[in-house]
This record gives sequence, C-alpha cells and structure tokens, in this order.
Amino acid sequence: MSDTKVYLLDGGSLVIDGFHAFWNRGPAGELRFPCYAVLIEHKDGRYIFDTGYDHAHVMRVLPFEKPLQTPDQTIPGALAKLNLRPKDINFVINSHYHFDHCGGNKHLTHACTVCHAKELEAARHPQPFEHLGYSDATFSPELVKARGQKLPPDPALDIYTPKFETISGDQEIAKGMWLYETPGHTAGHYSLMVELANRRPLLFTADACYSKKNMDMMVISSFHLDPVASVQSLVRLKELATKHDAELFYSHDPESWPGYIKAPGYYS
Amino acid sequence: MSDTKVYLLDGGSLVIDGFHAFWNRGPAGELRFPCYAVLIEHKDGRYIFDTGYDHAHVMRVLPFEKPLQTPDQTIPGALAKLNLRPKDINFVINSHYHFDHCGGNKHLTHACTVCHAKELEAARHPQPFEHLGYSDATFSPELVKARGQKLPPDPALDIYTPKFETISGDQEIAKGMWLYETPGHTAGHYSLMVELANRRPLLFTADACYSKKNMDMMVISSFHLDPVASVQSLVRLKELATKHDAELFYSHDPESWPGYIKAPGYYS
Repeated sequence: MSDTKVYLLDGGSLVIDGFHAFWNRGPAGELRFPCYAVLIEHKDGRYIFDTGYDHAHVMRVLPFEKPLQTPDQTIPGALAKLNLRPKDINFVINSHYHFDHCGGNKHLTHACTVCHAKELEAARHPQPFEHLGYSDATFSPELVKARGQKLPPDPALDIYTPKFETISGDQEIAKGMWLYETPGHTAGHYSLMVELANRRPLLFTADACYSKKNMDMMVISSFHLDPVASVQSLVRLKELATKHDAELFYSHDPESWPGYIKAPGYYS
Repeated sequence: MSDTKVYLLDGGSLVIDGFHAFWNRGPAGELRFPCYAVLIEHKDGRYIFDTGYDHAHVMRVLPFEKPLQTPDQTIPGALAKLNLRPKDINFVINSHYHFDHCGGNKHLTHACTVCHAKELEAARHPQPFEHLGYSDATFSPELVKARGQKLPPDPALDIYTPKFETISGDQEIAKGMWLYETPGHTAGHYSLMVELANRRPLLFTADACYSKKNMDMMVISSFHLDPVASVQSLVRLKELATKHDAELFYSHDPESWPGYIKAPGYYS
C-alpha cells in the first residue's frame, strides 16, 4: 500500500468584482482568481475533488468572467501531464455544482460521482439568483434535458453517462478522506479533508471560503444561498482546522495560490 | 372626519455601488439614491413610516455613502415646512431598523413606535454582516447601552424615551393602513399599504424592493439576511399590488423618485 498523494491541478483563472469576493465589503474592482481541481491518489482509487470550469461554457454564458485557461489547465490536459487519462479516475467528488467546480466532470467518463443529496436537488431547482452559478449542467446530461436545454456540441459528452452517489452528513468516504458539510454558499456544499502520512492534513474549503482574506475578515462571498449558514460554515472550517491541525486550502485565493504546490508536485 | 393624507418627506440621498442595489448583477459604479419618510395624516393620529438617516451618524460610521442632506431634509426640518413639530407625531412605524430608516426616530419624542417583534430582536442581535446596517441604534437608547456603546452627543436624545409596540403577522394598524410582512431584507421587515378616498392605494415597499428596476428584473439588493425570503417578498409585493390595485412606491429609486409627489404636496 502506497501513501496517499494529493495533486493540485491548475484550472486557469476567472475574474469577478471585489464586491463579489467580499460581500458588501469589496473594495470594488476586477479581481482575477485561480480555479483548480484536486487529484487524490488513494489506495482505494483515484479521486478528483472538483473539476474546474469549461472554457467554452464560460465564453458562451459568462464571458464577463474573462476566463484564461490553457490546454494544460483543462482536466484532460492536466491529467495528461501526469501520464493519466480521464478514464483512470474512479471517483469525482463535487463540493457543489457551480459551473467553476463541475465543468470538467464530463471528461471523467469512468468515474462514480459523489455529492451531497441536497446539492443535486438544488442544481435541479436553483433559486432565480443562482441560475448563472448552476448554468453548466453538463455534469448531468439528464438534467440538461430535464431543463429543456440542449447539450452543447462537445465530444466529451458523447461518451458520458455519469453514475451519481448522493450522501449527506459528514462522511469518511475513504480512509483518511473526510467530507464535512459546509452549507450556505449552496444548499449541499462539502469541504474535504485529506489525512496524509508525512504532514498535516489538508483541508480544502472549496467555496465555503474563497480565500485567507475571507477567513481572516470572516466575510463570505456575495454568491450564496444562505448567508447565516455561510458564516457558520466559515466558523466551522476554522474550528475543524484547529481540531485536526489541518492546513486550509482556499478555493479562489490569488494570494495563497502561488504558495501551493501544484502538480506535478504533490502533498503526501 | 377628514380624509387620510399621505406626505412624502424628502430625506436627502446616499450612495451605494450598483452591485449593492442589484445583487450580483450591477452594473458596478456609484449609484446615488433618495431616502424619504412617509407622513400619514389619519383620523386616528399622525403616523410616520420610516424616518430616514441621521447625517452625523452616516458621516461618523459610513462616510463612504456620501450623504447629501439639507436641514429641510431632516425630520424636524421637513415637519417644520408643514407647520408641524416632532411632538405632533403620534406613531412611528419602522419598516426595519437599518440606519437609513430609523435615523430620525429620536426626534419623535411623543410617538409610540410600532415595529415587527422579530425586527427589534434582530436589531439586538444582528448577524456579523448586518452590523453596518444596524449601526444606528439611537431609535432605542436602551439598546445602545445594552451594546456597551455610548449615545452620541445629540440634543434630541436628551428627551427621547421611546415606547415600543411590537407586532407580527399582517396587520391593519389603523383603518385603511395595512402592514404586510415582507421579510428577507431583514428578519422582521414590513411594507405599508395606505388606502385613500380619492385614488388607488399606495403600497410602500420599503427595502423589500429598492426600485422599479429591482421589481422588473426580480433582483433583490445585496443587503439581505435571507435571499430566498427576499425573492418571495418581491413576488408578494407584486401580488399585493395586483390584488389591491395599489401603486408601488419604492424606497430608494432614483428613477421613480422625481415622479412622486413630495411634501408639501400629498396623496389623498
């Protein structure tokens, strides 16, 4: 049995306003931030936690977020750099179904998809103010059809029929891999902690906390379903990090990102 | 018995960002909007619905909202133009306790104050992201002390000991004056409908809907406690307006404001 390894797969970047990143606090102005996927090589299989955004989708639906993404920053491209193919991935875990966290799902044709039951439900019936967030439903072609939409032309989708496994509550989904409920940003949001043999655990906040600055200021992002729950999730993440002596990895942090080890480097 | 008359008392203006007025939609950029109080001359007494902001408070706590307010745009000044004194007001109704809706309460020393029970509770225990909204607690000197704060030096406060009457549910508080629950912006938010002898009812949305554009787009403001409830309140206001053939009066609408009749003119 080999030790668990964690790779951060650079997924390019997007732009939002400072008032989006720091709800009602700002300051205003364009803020470019990174997106990434997390690959976990575990003795039970290969997991990917979140899959970034699809460039064509963003250009079609939210071009004002100015995506910058090279071929190496797509899921197939990033995996190829590690000599892996998309079909080598056994499990996809989605923290939530906003477009910048599930855009690469469709490439992972052999994976079982794990998510919170409430999140899949929310993606089916988003609030009116969540429509852009949930605009990329290619993670579930069946959902696209249920919405009366057409699947975009995309070779990846031709061979993609995802199998979902919905869960709820905190869960150790594999030895040393913990999903913690952190709702508020969306209805069924999960953060992920990975225990490693040779260092402190990694705690991936996903969008329960975009950045260290959000945590330090205790300010949530402007994209949220329930701000009261969001603040409670910030508090929860801080407590989890303390309890488990875990290092927090933020989802969209232009200041922390340069300090993270990116693939082909890894944490173990 | 004389007919009910409704006066709109200009309270000056403030500035917020377009992303505050139109949550996550914008466009970005400074937006100056009006604030006003509503005086209702009713056979049961004189009512004021909301009391605008206190210039000194805004300059001390939120100067970035760039208040513009002349002496005639304060509660005492606006009443004086109608040959009324603050002590002539019998009832204050607060839609909610954000600073730009209760800043003039302290002048109305002889009024009974009516509000939603949940709103008074929320003002006592605001969420962390609501602290600026609830920053002016001079509407309740007892609350200022409970917060461990000092009352600002202000002659108005020396003679002000408000009497609260908390209510809940929809209420006809006086013949033809209806308070409708419209929560979401805050915990215990009320909108007010006034029936008149000679024209359609007036439905004052207060901050359940800042502007006609918010209603047309079905977009709430970025200042909110519960966005799902906020959207439902938008829907409710639209339905109430239809049901009662009422005219909607928005709380902070730079485009509708010029078309409203301002005191000394009135609706009756």
